[in-house]
Amino acid sequence: MTGTSLDGVDVAIAEFTSNENNKHSLKLIAFNTYHLPGSVKELALKIIGNKGNLQDITLFHFLLPQVYAEAIQKLCSESGFPIDNIDAIGMHGQTVWHEPHPKSFDKFDVSGTFQLGSPSALANILNIQVVGDFRAADIALGGQGAPLVPIFDYEFLRNDNANIIALNIGGIANITYIKKSCAPSNVVAFDTGPGNSLIDAACRSYLKIEYDKDGENAQKGKLIPELFEKLMNHLYIKQSPPKSTGKELFNWDYVCQAMNEINYSDNYHLDIFNTLTQFTASSIALNIRKFASDHSKIIISGGGANNKYLLKLLNEQVPDSKIIKSDEIGIPADAKEAIAFAYLAYRTLGGLHGNLPSVTGAKREAVLGVLGIP
Amino acid sequence: MTGTSLDGVDVAIAEFTSNENNKHSLKLIAFNTYHLPGSVKELALKIIGNKGNLQDITLFHFLLPQVYAEAIQKLCSESGFPIDNIDAIGMHGQTVWHEPHPKSFDKFDVSGTFQLGSPSALANILNIQVVGDFRAADIALGGQGAPLVPIFDYEFLRNDNANIIALNIGGIANITYIKKSCAPSNVVAFDTGPGNSLIDAACRSYLKIEYDKDGENAQKGKLIPELFEKLMNHLYIKQSPPKSTGKELFNWDYVCQAMNEINYSDNYHLDIFNTLTQFTASSIALNIRKFASDHSKIIISGGGANNKYLLKLLNEQVPDSKIIKSDEIGIPADAKEAIAFAYLAYRTLGGLHGNLPSVTGAKREAVLGVLGIP
Repeated sequence: MTGTSLDGVDVAIAEFTSNENNKHSLKLIAFNTYHLPGSVKELALKIIGNKGNLQDITLFHFLLPQVYAEAIQKLCSESGFPIDNIDAIGMHGQTVWHEPHPKSFDKFDVSGTFQLGSPSALANILNIQVVGDFRAADIALGGQGAPLVPIFDYEFLRNDNANIIALNIGGIANITYIKKSCAPSNVVAFDTGPGNSLIDAACRSYLKIEYDKDGENAQKGKLIPELFEKLMNHLYIKQSPPKSTGKELFNWDYVCQAMNEINYSDNYHLDIFNTLTQFTASSIALNIRKFASDHSKIIISGGGANNKYLLKLLNEQVPDSKIIKSDEIGIPADAKEAIAFAYLAYRTLGGLHGNLPSVTGAKREAVLGVLGIP
Repeated sequence: MTGTSLDGVDVAIAEFTSNENNKHSLKLIAFNTYHLPGSVKELALKIIGNKGNLQDITLFHFLLPQVYAEAIQKLCSESGFPIDNIDAIGMHGQTVWHEPHPKSFDKFDVSGTFQLGSPSALANILNIQVVGDFRAADIALGGQGAPLVPIFDYEFLRNDNANIIALNIGGIANITYIKKSCAPSNVVAFDTGPGNSLIDAACRSYLKIEYDKDGENAQKGKLIPELFEKLMNHLYIKQSPPKSTGKELFNWDYVCQAMNEINYSDNYHLDIFNTLTQFTASSIALNIRKFASDHSKIIISGGGANNKYLLKLLNEQVPDSKIIKSDEIGIPADAKEAIAFAYLAYRTLGGLHGNLPSVTGAKREAVLGVLGIP
């Protein structure tokens, strides 16, 4: 898959098996992220920025499978895993638009989601079956088409003796909450608010760097209480789930507007880093306390799992929870999403549903995706 | 399917069976064309006109399956065919862009094709498996992704005792040439040039009508020899196959430019109708003589099959051929393309290839499409 940030192509090779009780197990064989060639990233940015025409979109739909195919071949060759041993590829593709709220056309109410990358093309390039277009079925059934990782969390992280929170800190932060002895229909999952998006935006804006390594800059600053309160007052933070958000809401404009509103003009960068990191930690903690449980085992993945200061702040706010990185249980923090979509492909090929209607709002469970035939 | 002209949704219910020699047979159960609701057609025209944004494209991708689902339900109800008896749906979708000639992005050479309408959405709305995205595999294998109807022609029209030409006169005219005792690898298929496109454009331009019924207007006029020669001199007409064209080439601008070049200003409409109809017939006949055989049985389908004057002119130019409408062999002229895509779905589900590499230029035969899982 390629995420919205276009950092690169994430490829995981994973083996799934099922025992006699239909309990699945997972073995990660290899994972890597591959650089997107310049002209590919350029075309993707043009399309995501809504500046692409039909020709751009059409070509990107067939360019991406070529890029994916090469990445898969590289990972096989680097890891010594024979490509002929791959049973199937789960391809998320590149999301270019997500519109979960229905619009009306005559008598039809329509919502939609749009992932580029032709599954049929990839299947024919590599001669391997491809499961793709995972979000469409859930959308067609009135769901949000997201999040889809919770069924992976439920299968591999649930615990009969502890509340589990799978916390993923990407650009946006989201949690899957699996209460002790929870049934699938009681899984709760939603976006808590900003993940790395605001801290990264400050890095780009003030320091021309991509991210605040280990939270080093934030640690050197101190809290600006008025700004912190202003940010925490965003209605989204306290809103009850189901809820989802994106960088349309939590971006640099939002921070600048908040600074304006409190007439903050010192522009002392390190304090801003500190405040944004505290806001990120506090918005996650507040959602955990309010809509999950702060007596939980919190398993963190995503790029934000590497921000030590952020984790320290979070830890202070939910002292009764135990925080670990997903790496500790064999799932590298960066690889989790790719592994989860490989697992969704495994479920689809086994005729098993991949969405959790309690999470997405769909009318019913659905076997997700289309099968690209080699 | 919905064609580029957006006349409506074509739905065919057909039963395919295979005998012990793997020879397929076809029984058409029902066919109809359903009107596209106003706002659906409007959105489609906006997108096809390259004026749609990502939101438009995303919503149309999910709106179309709803429109298709309703049309399928209507045809079942009108024909008394129980919808539960449908094994699978073959969905062509709406072509919005077709780019068979490769462009370069870094080291990647990419061509593409783009059909809207999510197969996964339709499968989940009706709870029936859907085969869709028929053109992607052939494109990924270096083919043109078109034409795909020839394998249908080969299976159901071929004859050990006669040369067969399947002539489809839509906006553009195309032929499949199946020589007596022809092997699949020797099938020839290509666009001959204009079908109804120029005649229809004259109708809209001069008479504000959609088409020249039975060629009545053309019959009342007489040939303008200079204009006829100018039109026939278009390089495409005499070019050797493989070749394909579209309304980008044969449109009203092309006619106006030709009239300009010969300083034709009488603007006597009926003579223009006559000349365009003669050009259409002659360009088809020339291609039949040059690249197929004028000792053939010609089986005509498409809207142009209803233009009696056009057929009379064609008949005069290939007097050694026998011309019949496809209706005479049980395939209604308007329904042929829809039936052909139902057949392609049947082939895909049976694990059979759907493209003819001799026709599309693909590296190899391919099982076409993706399977939308209900």
